[in-house]
Amino acid sequence: MALVEHERSLAVVVHGGAGRVDPATWDDRVAAVVRARDAAWSRLASGASALEAAVEAVRRLEDDPLFNAGVGAALNREGFAELDAAVMDGEERAFGAVAAVRDVRNPVELALEVLRSEHVLLAGEGASRFARERGIPACDPRELVTERQRERWRRARRGEAAERSGTVGAVVLDAAGRLAAASSTGGMVDQRVGRVGDTPLPGAGVYAEAGLGAATATGHGEYFARALASWRAVLALRERDPDEAVRHALNEVERLGGRGGLILVDARGRTAWAKTTPEMSVAWRSAEGEGAQIGDEAWV
Amino acid sequence: MALVEHERSLAVVVHGGAGRVDPATWDDRVAAVVRARDAAWSRLASGASALEAAVEAVRRLEDDPLFNAGVGAALNREGFAELDAAVMDGEERAFGAVAAVRDVRNPVELALEVLRSEHVLLAGEGASRFARERGIPACDPRELVTERQRERWRRARRGEAAERSGTVGAVVLDAAGRLAAASSTGGMVDQRVGRVGDTPLPGAGVYAEAGLGAATATGHGEYFARALASWRAVLALRERDPDEAVRHALNEVERLGGRGGLILVDARGRTAWAKTTPEMSVAWRSAEGEGAQIGDEAWV
Repeated sequence: MALVEHERSLAVVVHGGAGRVDPATWDDRVAAVVRARDAAWSRLASGASALEAAVEAVRRLEDDPLFNAGVGAALNREGFAELDAAVMDGEERAFGAVAAVRDVRNPVELALEVLRSEHVLLAGEGASRFARERGIPACDPRELVTERQRERWRRARRGEAAERSGTVGAVVLDAAGRLAAASSTGGMVDQRVGRVGDTPLPGAGVYAEAGLGAATATGHGEYFARALASWRAVLALRERDPDEAVRHALNEVERLGGRGGLILVDARGRTAWAKTTPEMSVAWRSAEGEGAQIGDEAWV
Repeated sequence: MALVEHERSLAVVVHGGAGRVDPATWDDRVAAVVRARDAAWSRLASGASALEAAVEAVRRLEDDPLFNAGVGAALNREGFAELDAAVMDGEERAFGAVAAVRDVRNPVELALEVLRSEHVLLAGEGASRFARERGIPACDPRELVTERQRERWRRARRGEAAERSGTVGAVVLDAAGRLAAASSTGGMVDQRVGRVGDTPLPGAGVYAEAGLGAATATGHGEYFARALASWRAVLALRERDPDEAVRHALNEVERLGGRGGLILVDARGRTAWAKTTPEMSVAWRSAEGEGAQIGDEAWV
């Protein structure tokens, strides 16, 4: 697709989670990450910042019940959703996140409000109160529950192996050279109440640093947190190209015992992603080209 | 003080918070961090691990109502304490933390239980439930409230500048060469319900990496989180000596707009600390010597 001049420096990568994914949903998942990518790109093309575009992509996936974020999030041990989300802007490394929120449809928007406040992380009921102050309405927690996740939760409660696919995310470079990352998740099916993974932890689930790169992770969050995977990938850009940088970080996660995926964009607009799981839905676009994938072969 | 042979490789640094501290409490604060340091050292000398010794030091400061952790923690906007704590073991970078806990006297012990579980971070009510499962009893939230903190909270509510001194922490190297860090805090006086600072975020408030070093931070948590200050200090040991490493990380925090302090021990048993606030109570001991300080001059 031809790019107009000011689009030549843009770059977007979006993912819809890494794991083992039901093949019957592959088409729909790839189509959804492509739409989220294109929505972010459109925003960028009309002058939005990297941060705004990353939030746009993640919000769209939160609204899609196929993905483990917002409506359609995984259900915890007691059968309701507890949501985590984070955003980071490479400019001055501004960070905002929420953890264990039960009554917000788009936690990534709430994370953006935290970034704009004097705080970096708000948890639980305090995050919900902050949402009300900022004009983000409460939703009934039941609105977040889909029949698909309820069935998945029932299987997990019976001890049956559940399909695992966690977290959605986006990384963006805008025309002004700004870098941003955003992520949102419902965590792991049947997880302990109050369990928080890597998503709302700076450097773990998301990281962005001006002049270097932006990255976000998906997978077994505890291992990504211990490896500080997103910062590790961005920091590796000092010595490695983007493909090597994401593999370097995933290798460290795997050494600790965890699997998942990472997406990254660097300050020159180069994109990269890698996974250590069978599937990961991902769509990317930059001056180098565009594409989408879920298994090991290019999709489009 | 003469060291027996197996103590020659040990190192302990303990702090009781950085900020502006009432001079009337200086003597007591220094005496308390010295006692906590010596308790950790005794544990090490009888064969305890770095992790156990770091937890011991922090637990003692949680129990001391002078410090902003456990009993005597700062009170939030609604007048009760919400506690954060974290521990990290450099071996395999195991991490455990709790955030916004309201009914546990020693959150650092709960963070240690999280480290021993399959999780890295539990928040709010979920963390309290986990405590009960692990045999850690609930306390009445009123037990955590001291008259001193209530008065400080009243002054903050009236808009009067409050004394600020947040977070306690310890870093330890044991005889087997293991490194660990631990930290505990009540956060900022009059803080928003659910506000979480850098303490329970890996790489931000605490970090430990085998073969390199362990660090923990105190100060304006939001800036330490964005700077990933503890990991930054440990990582800097690859190119800098310990004193330069902690200053390097504090400079980055200051560049973003925040102040506070850091303590560090490296894999060779060298200790370091630095502050960008008027006071920070700190006590250290290693083969290089021992000491304690709160302002700009050596105390003992």
